[in-house]
Amino acid sequence: MSIISLLTDFGLQDGFVGVMKGVIWGIIPEVQIADISHQIEPQNVMQGAITLWRVAPYFPDGSVHVAVVDPGVGTERRALAAQLGNQYYIAPDNGLLTPLIQDAKSQDLPCQFIELTNSKYWLSAVSNTFHGRDIFAPVGAHLAAGIDLDDLGNPFDDPILIELSQPTRTQEGWQAHVVAIDIFGNIETDLRADQVESLEQIVVRIKGREIDGLVSSFGHRQAGELIAVISSEGFIEIAVVNGNAALDLKVKIGDVVEVLIKSLE
Amino acid sequence: MSIISLLTDFGLQDGFVGVMKGVIWGIIPEVQIADISHQIEPQNVMQGAITLWRVAPYFPDGSVHVAVVDPGVGTERRALAAQLGNQYYIAPDNGLLTPLIQDAKSQDLPCQFIELTNSKYWLSAVSNTFHGRDIFAPVGAHLAAGIDLDDLGNPFDDPILIELSQPTRTQEGWQAHVVAIDIFGNIETDLRADQVESLEQIVVRIKGREIDGLVSSFGHRQAGELIAVISSEGFIEIAVVNGNAALDLKVKIGDVVEVLIKSLE
Amino acid sequence: MSIISLLTDFGLQDGFVGVMKGVIWGIIPEVQIADISHQIEPQNVMQGAITLWRVAPYFPDGSVHVAVVDPGVGTERRALAAQLGNQYYIAPDNGLLTPLIQDAKSQDLPCQFIELTNSKYWLSAVSNTFHGRDIFAPVGAHLAAGIDLDDLGNPFDDPILIELSQPTRTQEGWQAHVVAIDIFGNIETDLRADQVESLEQIVVRIKGREIDGLVSSFGHRQAGELIAVISSEGFIEIAVVNGNAALDLKVKIGDVVEVLIKSLE
Repeated sequence: MSIISLLTDFGLQDGFVGVMKGVIWGIIPEVQIADISHQIEPQNVMQGAITLWRVAPYFPDGSVHVAVVDPGVGTERRALAAQLGNQYYIAPDNGLLTPLIQDAKSQDLPCQFIELTNSKYWLSAVSNTFHGRDIFAPVGAHLAAGIDLDDLGNPFDDPILIELSQPTRTQEGWQAHVVAIDIFGNIETDLRADQVESLEQIVVRIKGREIDGLVSSFGHRQAGELIAVISSEGFIEIAVVNGNAALDLKVKIGDVVEVLIKSLE
Repeated sequence: MSIISLLTDFGLQDGFVGVMKGVIWGIIPEVQIADISHQIEPQNVMQGAITLWRVAPYFPDGSVHVAVVDPGVGTERRALAAQLGNQYYIAPDNGLLTPLIQDAKSQDLPCQFIELTNSKYWLSAVSNTFHGRDIFAPVGAHLAAGIDLDDLGNPFDDPILIELSQPTRTQEGWQAHVVAIDIFGNIETDLRADQVESLEQIVVRIKGREIDGLVSSFGHRQAGELIAVISSEGFIEIAVVNGNAALDLKVKIGDVVEVLIKSLE
Repeated sequence: MSIISLLTDFGLQDGFVGVMKGVIWGIIPEVQIADISHQIEPQNVMQGAITLWRVAPYFPDGSVHVAVVDPGVGTERRALAAQLGNQYYIAPDNGLLTPLIQDAKSQDLPCQFIELTNSKYWLSAVSNTFHGRDIFAPVGAHLAAGIDLDDLGNPFDDPILIELSQPTRTQEGWQAHVVAIDIFGNIETDLRADQVESLEQIVVRIKGREIDGLVSSFGHRQAGELIAVISSEGFIEIAVVNGNAALDLKVKIGDVVEVLIKSLE
């Protein structure tokens, strides 16, 4: 049983996702389809990249991830299929796979890119504005059905990468940044907990507020309290217990979060 | 492997869609279920009709589409099953299938309507307010499981049709109308591009703004620019590159869009 | 073919639900997965409990319902698996199953609880903040794949129950309460229609408005009219035809709804 995931900025109102499923099941009726997210902010390639990178590695080997956040649809931007480790991806070549590519390269995993040029695997009529339906969905379905990656087009080795937020070392510790805000208002930073040498000694400073130390989870403090935790992906995260930290602190993507290490002061 | 799609105005919060899936899988556990949309505006039969018509034809032959936008639930309005071409539909008889019926008739495809009267295929207890769960879902499941359309009730041939927006010819070109606004704020009109005789010579006028000519896709112009394109369904569409045209122009469904043909002036 | 349902407060934006599906299909690739709701208000155990209770009984016997509304994640709160009647549940032990447990007990159905302690059925790395992905999803998948409930951990018999809203008898009839407001703005109360002895004689009083009698469904009155109906779950419900009663009346959960019986006055 093969598996396809979908990640887009298409929303759930207009039927754009449903039509992709109809196209996919017309090619491979037995495939399982999981929605990762269709509420990526329109054209926000960075948000799409981070969301896909967090989720895709939990899927079984051989899964095909069809990701479409595609401000360049209908221009000459390449469309690609990729193998990264034991998983497959179909996406516009605009940086959407950046963190997945970086992880695969740093771990010496298989890393292969094909430009989608073989229109045999597309719908017969291709619009200029909806390649999710006309190209990405059918190509993903054919790949899940067993077509070789090589059959989809021509290999290349210079996929577009976008610059990802990185924490920087300071005299007092780290300067991190807000990279994601989830539905609960929890604020995820770009600083991995395992990068910090004295986790039990940190003070987190954000928007003029200071948080002394990490707690192990939300339920260890009272409702309404501002806390820092290690996120489920292993990064430093700021939250309000049973509340919404991002709204309370008026935080936005890119804002600075200082992580001070007491022994350095 | 058979396929059911669902389109409703039920939203995703209250479990109304999940319960339909439980009912369906109790009858035919192996059927694939695709959500087309559950965010049709409450009781907006027109929006449901347009969304279903755009999506359903991309599903494989034999698919069963269960569509429930049903302000008349619990009254004497008919409930129906239909075969249109090679696809099947379960819906209240309130116009939700109008453009699909018109297309099937204009193309001389099979067109058959059954009033749902055979309660053998319904849940044993039928509420007055939730026929999606109690009638439409189980009937769709039985149809996908191989029951004959004729077994569901009595044939009839006068389904309710709603009046669809149509462009009108003018001395300068066409007077079109806004028929849909998608999640990106793109504005779709009722004017098919192939109805316009001199596509390379048009000026689009909307809300006092003029757009000179069509571009082939969003990425061909700068962010923020107001453009006209051919939509993925083949209609004249107005968009703001990486922006939200409907919000910018304060456009609503039914607003006039003039398409002027320069050679006629 | 086995079936898993998911109910959470995770929303659909961040990929939290998609990653659970990836984990599940890695364990049992052929299982069907239905979303019941992922738009439970964050940490609102009561809303989750009511939604799950309305939907789960419509699923076929043997279904596994994974429900995660979990303000206590990462604390010592128990996680549980339960058999209630012929269905299975995986959830934090925080009251999320309360009405399902009460129904099973009152109907003398099988009722068994296991504390999840056998980490063999969890992901190998368990975070402190996302047990939906790391514990509940994989345990649900193993259960759907045929593992015995007993293998998941240790039996116990004192699951946490929350206090559910109950109508009280008054001299004039019943004092009921608002327990749910759905996407249409329909207002559901805690008073079952079959508790009321003279249904054809009632007056419903809510927020200073009076509704004389029940109608059988929305379509029997004019758009805009305030009505009372029997909900699809059998409770007294207040609605505005083609409108939004909760917004119109500024109703919130817990508000009083008086149901007066004329013969008692």
